[in-house]
Amino acid sequence: MARIAVCLSGCGFKDGAEIHESVLTLLALDQAGAEILCCAPNIQQVAVVNHLEMRPVEGEKRNVLVESARIARGDIVDMSIVQADDIDGLIFPGGFGAAQNLCSFASDGPACTVHPEVERLTGQMLDAKKPIGAVCIAPAMLARIVGKRNINPRLTIGNDKQTAAAVEKMGSQHVECESESCVVDETNRIVSTPAYMLADGPAQVFEGIQRLVNEVLRLSQA
Amino acid sequence: MARIAVCLSGCGFKDGAEIHESVLTLLALDQAGAEILCCAPNIQQVAVVNHLEMRPVEGEKRNVLVESARIARGDIVDMSIVQADDIDGLIFPGGFGAAQNLCSFASDGPACTVHPEVERLTGQMLDAKKPIGAVCIAPAMLARIVGKRNINPRLTIGNDKQTAAAVEKMGSQHVECESESCVVDETNRIVSTPAYMLADGPAQVFEGIQRLVNEVLRLSQA
Repeated sequence: MARIAVCLSGCGFKDGAEIHESVLTLLALDQAGAEILCCAPNIQQVAVVNHLEMRPVEGEKRNVLVESARIARGDIVDMSIVQADDIDGLIFPGGFGAAQNLCSFASDGPACTVHPEVERLTGQMLDAKKPIGAVCIAPAMLARIVGKRNINPRLTIGNDKQTAAAVEKMGSQHVECESESCVVDETNRIVSTPAYMLADGPAQVFEGIQRLVNEVLRLSQA
Repeated sequence: MARIAVCLSGCGFKDGAEIHESVLTLLALDQAGAEILCCAPNIQQVAVVNHLEMRPVEGEKRNVLVESARIARGDIVDMSIVQADDIDGLIFPGGFGAAQNLCSFASDGPACTVHPEVERLTGQMLDAKKPIGAVCIAPAMLARIVGKRNINPRLTIGNDKQTAAAVEKMGSQHVECESESCVVDETNRIVSTPAYMLADGPAQVFEGIQRLVNEVLRLSQA
């Protein structure tokens, strides 16, 4: 049975992990019989956003690991204790948290920095040739990590021209993709799907994520 | 196309709506082609629970509608504006929020009170003979509403003896059920499934919820 880590970035698409993408990743993994290890960095969120009024809440502090635990039903660990040796694959759901808490892409674009633990674990996975899945905006973060290592995979963030240009500036090759599908870079063992970069509901998101999960599981055995 | 309201109770299984059950309800509805209307009462949560350490957070306040908006990606309304005339069915996902924010079952058991807007909309649905779905612990809340109207449906909360006894004390007939299945009361158009009262992961939860959603949709057309 493959053991797949899912790295969350909070709980809510405007300041953390996209909840549908996260839960549907867990669903696809569970349906495929994989063992799931949820993890998140133990850091403060960059922002807290009121998702009803879509405005930042000044002065409120929330922790990425604590909020991510809501999605994981408490079954989650600090990603600083996760090593590539412990897992067979690593998946990053999307949401603004992936672009703001796991890295600084939301504010710094192609010049962004990545949280050290995210960079460490992702680097270990690349070194071990174990597969990585990235959903929605998470491929932008991944492009930064792999670009610094002169790895130039095929990736998708859907068809948004500005984000695609940023991904290419970081050294990856952007491939347009529908939300129901995914892009597989066999050489670098990297799988990506646009999800809510393009999808108009959870059914479309699930189609793409189910494909991504099945490719990550296939590559984890290859 | 059927229009189904999903009543949320926060965002997190220990103080709000169970996130997997909520998202998987939205997935099943979207897959079936239903139109979705998320709603929640605009009230303060009874508690805020740290889902990593599983302890109440003293002094922190969160609003049920605002937190539910995270699950609904902002596409949610105050349930006080929802009328039975606007919808073809109503579904309550579970989570402690259903037993603590939507009603007081968590503290008061069979003598619990129900939030007035939840009681009003549910009553309208019963009067209009439109179907109601209840997931996980939500059937306990429903048992209280229907019991006060001398309606005694067949319901399930899985197989927990204490909760089943409470449901029976409120006048409903408890039926044991696996998490992958659901109980349908054709006469009263009430459908229930145990979900995380019994399930050990999202795949089992989704099986039961998909059945519940399909029964609610069938009854909404009947």
